[in-house]
Amino acid sequence: MPLKTEAPEKAMSLKESMSGWQQRVNTALENRLPKGKIQPATLHQAMRSSVLLGGKRIRPVLVYAIGQCLNADENILDNPACAVEIIHAYSLIHDDLPAMDDDDLRRGQPTCHIRYGEAMAILAGDALQPLAFQILTRSKKYLPAENVLQMIEILAAASGSHGMAGGQAIDLESVGKKLNIAELENMHIHKTGALIRASAQLGALCQPTVTTEQFEALDHYGKCVGLAFQVQDDILDIEAPTETLGKPQGADAALNKPTYPAILGLQESKELALQLHEDAIAHLAIFGDKAQVLRELSAYIIGREY
Amino acid sequence: MPLKTEAPEKAMSLKESMSGWQQRVNTALENRLPKGKIQPATLHQAMRSSVLLGGKRIRPVLVYAIGQCLNADENILDNPACAVEIIHAYSLIHDDLPAMDDDDLRRGQPTCHIRYGEAMAILAGDALQPLAFQILTRSKKYLPAENVLQMIEILAAASGSHGMAGGQAIDLESVGKKLNIAELENMHIHKTGALIRASAQLGALCQPTVTTEQFEALDHYGKCVGLAFQVQDDILDIEAPTETLGKPQGADAALNKPTYPAILGLQESKELALQLHEDAIAHLAIFGDKAQVLRELSAYIIGREY
Repeated sequence: MPLKTEAPEKAMSLKESMSGWQQRVNTALENRLPKGKIQPATLHQAMRSSVLLGGKRIRPVLVYAIGQCLNADENILDNPACAVEIIHAYSLIHDDLPAMDDDDLRRGQPTCHIRYGEAMAILAGDALQPLAFQILTRSKKYLPAENVLQMIEILAAASGSHGMAGGQAIDLESVGKKLNIAELENMHIHKTGALIRASAQLGALCQPTVTTEQFEALDHYGKCVGLAFQVQDDILDIEAPTETLGKPQGADAALNKPTYPAILGLQESKELALQLHEDAIAHLAIFGDKAQVLRELSAYIIGREY
Repeated sequence: MPLKTEAPEKAMSLKESMSGWQQRVNTALENRLPKGKIQPATLHQAMRSSVLLGGKRIRPVLVYAIGQCLNADENILDNPACAVEIIHAYSLIHDDLPAMDDDDLRRGQPTCHIRYGEAMAILAGDALQPLAFQILTRSKKYLPAENVLQMIEILAAASGSHGMAGGQAIDLESVGKKLNIAELENMHIHKTGALIRASAQLGALCQPTVTTEQFEALDHYGKCVGLAFQVQDDILDIEAPTETLGKPQGADAALNKPTYPAILGLQESKELALQLHEDAIAHLAIFGDKAQVLRELSAYIIGREY
């Protein structure tokens, strides 16, 4: 696989970039979330603990990486980076609810409803969603109002019934059913793909001089990377040991959830991930070296060990 | 009470206006909600049935009435009218969930989770929220992008932890507690007041020539009417017969929920409602006859029988 032939120095540079962006978005989120002492305090604490619990921040990293490729100002990238992560965090809170996946642990910590009760967890998710849109409106400080509106439109579409929430609904109705590969792909394009793709689009719109050609190349990258992320996630569910994964190995398979390895087989799933990676980076040539982090990020996504 | 001295012709005109706006927003909502046959179909059906179930559409009526007062184009008012009603509808779906109020019936029909299951009801609410913001972005067809951004900012703030969701959290932690009148008011200003006030603000922003003085007078109206609405709701919980109310008489009192009559007594609660009505209309003189519907609407809210 190409990523194994990369020089260690480049891998280091991706790690450094990612670590810097992770810290940056954590600080930005910390500043944008209501303080835990402000009333209604329990709600604010539930919102904060869910968002600030950590994670790889793949969506914000993508916003910053796309922005860097276009020489966008990092200060402009903070709002969309926070907005996509907040939408992701709200979806995890609601996913974990007893009526949904009924998970007690998330990243080794008690889930929101275990800690704050089910009603408060529903409300924490409900309150995070408008916060994401509110944060995006603040980008009018840096960008033309038309661009900000376009960003809100993209995030709303990616979150709604034709995006993430729609993907969840498809997932809900797919458990125990035999999906074909097209149906599985359709589910993931919505469930995880839409928000990852939106992250790429939002990052690109932070550079007001972005051309249509550039925007489309980066959107294509986001679309491919979003799907590759899910294929790799399914592979890891089978291959990674429980302690690395943070959830029991084979958990999805045990729940009879449709996965890529279940439909395509493990080897073909790995080939699909690699193909999506190559497809993702295929149109980045117009950016030259500026897209190097994007190439490495895509390789990291399909080669990541956890 | 002043509303009793009004000529029948005026009351008729309010009824006619309300009925027209209710029909108008129903059509507008019908056109803006994803069709029930479009995938993911069950999710879309759950969203549609919850929003299109009916109701008095007080929030959209307020958007249209404020807009009429400022001679705003009704075509411009449709998007914000739909957006506030969709936020209201999502909040009802989540309110009714077993972990929240655990209601099986809403407007005489099975609630969303009874009909579609709890997981799908959570998702229907989750998907309605971004739809409201998406619909608002479409107002850029009629209004400067800056105005539209301001509308999104107002709706997001009114829906989030410092608005409706925050009010729900306060409510959740208040059951069984003795609140004083300031605490009760604080709860309702968030829980129902914020979205009603936002409806007035959004209606006003549909007239790009609105002056600061006009905006502030209408915002004041929205603030007072939002609180009056809740005081009257508490009064009706005690006074109205079950069949008129659509829920058991005294249901809130039975749940040990804090109410205005419980804290102030029934008579003083009625006086408070009247006082809020008078306060609401006190600053409408600058609009002359154009504000007549707003005056009648406020009287209707505190005098309504159901």
